[in-house]
Amino acid sequence: MEITIIQKRLAKALSIMSRVALNSRTGLPILNNVLLRAEGNQLTLTATNLELATVSYLTAKVEKEGTITVPARLMAEFVANLPKDDDVNISTKDGKMTVSAGKYKSTINGIAADDFPELPKIDEKKAVQFRVGVDVLKESINEVSVAASNDMTRPALTGVYFNTFDGALYMAATDGYRLTDKRFIDEVKSEVKAIVPASALQEVLRSISDDVEEVEIMFDETQVRFLIGDVEVMSKLIDGSFPDYRQLIPKNTEIEVEVDRNELLRMVKVAALFARDSGGSVVCETKSAEGVFSVGAVASELGENKTDLKVEVDSDGKVTVNSRFLMDALNVLLVDKIRFGFSGKLTPVVLRGVGSDNYTHLVMPLRGQ
Amino acid sequence: MEITIIQKRLAKALSIMSRVALNSRTGLPILNNVLLRAEGNQLTLTATNLELATVSYLTAKVEKEGTITVPARLMAEFVANLPKDDDVNISTKDGKMTVSAGKYKSTINGIAADDFPELPKIDEKKAVQFRVGVDVLKESINEVSVAASNDMTRPALTGVYFNTFDGALYMAATDGYRLTDKRFIDEVKSEVKAIVPASALQEVLRSISDDVEEVEIMFDETQVRFLIGDVEVMSKLIDGSFPDYRQLIPKNTEIEVEVDRNELLRMVKVAALFARDSGGSVVCETKSAEGVFSVGAVASELGENKTDLKVEVDSDGKVTVNSRFLMDALNVLLVDKIRFGFSGKLTPVVLRGVGSDNYTHLVMPLRGQ
Repeated sequence: MEITIIQKRLAKALSIMSRVALNSRTGLPILNNVLLRAEGNQLTLTATNLELATVSYLTAKVEKEGTITVPARLMAEFVANLPKDDDVNISTKDGKMTVSAGKYKSTINGIAADDFPELPKIDEKKAVQFRVGVDVLKESINEVSVAASNDMTRPALTGVYFNTFDGALYMAATDGYRLTDKRFIDEVKSEVKAIVPASALQEVLRSISDDVEEVEIMFDETQVRFLIGDVEVMSKLIDGSFPDYRQLIPKNTEIEVEVDRNELLRMVKVAALFARDSGGSVVCETKSAEGVFSVGAVASELGENKTDLKVEVDSDGKVTVNSRFLMDALNVLLVDKIRFGFSGKLTPVVLRGVGSDNYTHLVMPLRGQ
Repeated sequence: MEITIIQKRLAKALSIMSRVALNSRTGLPILNNVLLRAEGNQLTLTATNLELATVSYLTAKVEKEGTITVPARLMAEFVANLPKDDDVNISTKDGKMTVSAGKYKSTINGIAADDFPELPKIDEKKAVQFRVGVDVLKESINEVSVAASNDMTRPALTGVYFNTFDGALYMAATDGYRLTDKRFIDEVKSEVKAIVPASALQEVLRSISDDVEEVEIMFDETQVRFLIGDVEVMSKLIDGSFPDYRQLIPKNTEIEVEVDRNELLRMVKVAALFARDSGGSVVCETKSAEGVFSVGAVASELGENKTDLKVEVDSDGKVTVNSRFLMDALNVLLVDKIRFGFSGKLTPVVLRGVGSDNYTHLVMPLRGQ
């Protein structure tokens, strides 16, 4: 292999590769490596940890075609430290790769490309395909994936459930304590039910660069592929069944107040400071006679806190929730005004943006006072 | 106590207090607390971990004088989350403190001020005193303290040695692998030899705000006090003897090259990537015939690296050093051009800024090839 490529583009692609490749002395050494393939006028970089794979296609001046694999992190860090805008020359000989730019020169020991695991191809005949704008995709992943579980003993809950319903595409997630649901593409023609690892979606977010406007998402029976400009992110789907979550979302709530998002976030934050003894539980309450919505933490070893906000409300009610889950919800629900709905102590709190109905965030109540 | 004070000023002072106060459920509970004393038109805040103490003097509207102690971190976080520019009202009753601002209101359980440890007073009669501009102090602490040790079994080396010599005040530090020395006040009249904990100096750095121009430093036999605007930082001195370090600094070196600091830093960084197998050791070498200064890492499992920089040099030499120590030095030596001096494999590398002789940074050589 003998190629020349601009530092900036190579550094960016390598930073993606070094996140996906493993970085450990245990495990299969070649999974620490990035595969470089120079062919035509293109350099293709590939990294995989067997669950997730990422491929980047870069235009390069190819003097001599060839392939090699080298440690992804080492190569990424070396190239990242080279002067910006310099040309980087890469050549291979006897299983070693030489990388140079100006006075900087390194030789990196490689492993033959033959040993690199074959990436499973998506079955395009059986696949369904969707297109979505990057802004909607980013927002939706952030809004939904916050509710995904970290508990590896229940794999289906560690993913985000892509599902079509009534002609639209939804993402949903739940860890049993909260639930998120977002209608993010209206009017789709194909059907899909697939659980995508939340970690793969984080990698999708990180791989979106400013020059990309639209993302293509393709599902077959066992895999998903996101095509993001000149980067592909592929992941295995999670094998399992996602709960029938729609029935868990209350059709309506008895009490509903409209509150400023930033104000509510601040109220919950200060109450949370006093809720450390009680595992973060805070009490939300409406009093129609005084026209207030209050958030507070009950007296603990530390003290107590309560903030009263003037609102329009016609019923009295009280619910105890985990302040961390409430803050998580308010941190992803990027609208000015929130509808906070509930029906007493035993049913979930329903959070939605005022004037928008495509995103629902449920927080289950705690057994409170 | 009954006082009113502006959120911004109180929040800033409390953030200093919450760093110094302990924050643990083990240990004396009152050391987690900040002491508030309202007297005259002043609110005084005090926190201590018994090694280090900090006091902040704030102007406040005092309706009723009094004292109390409350958990420093809780109070700091509550006040930090209140709206900026709001007036904060603080009052105490029955050992509880109520803090409110607008609709936000908390009650924090306190401990009586009588239980708060008495701060040792500095003996002003026996004390010596120096004044220094904040910019010089900041720069000097950063340049010197990087070489202080973390090894608590040799307490004297965990401090910075303030010492007068030939009519000037110096700071010095060494961990046995590198040594720093800075002449930071010329023409002083008093004499001092005192080892200040490096951690106290970090607290001094954090307590300097933009409106402070000069710092007063006062030493007595056992303590040091830094007066930084309306904040005082007091620390015990480290009891022990500091090595007679001046004799360790070579009078001159056989080989000296002038190099651009950023360029050298980049050269060392990329070499360090290849030096992971060898504990970070990199080789610095001059070749007079070719007029080059090179930094490289010898062939390892990963590969190898070498960068040649064109310089003026009239001798050949080679020295092996720890790349981390070299990077530490280059990260604090904030000048454009560096003098890199050495005399072969066995004597220390001497780093100084071109055109400046008040700061010396020594890095001991490693046994290399």
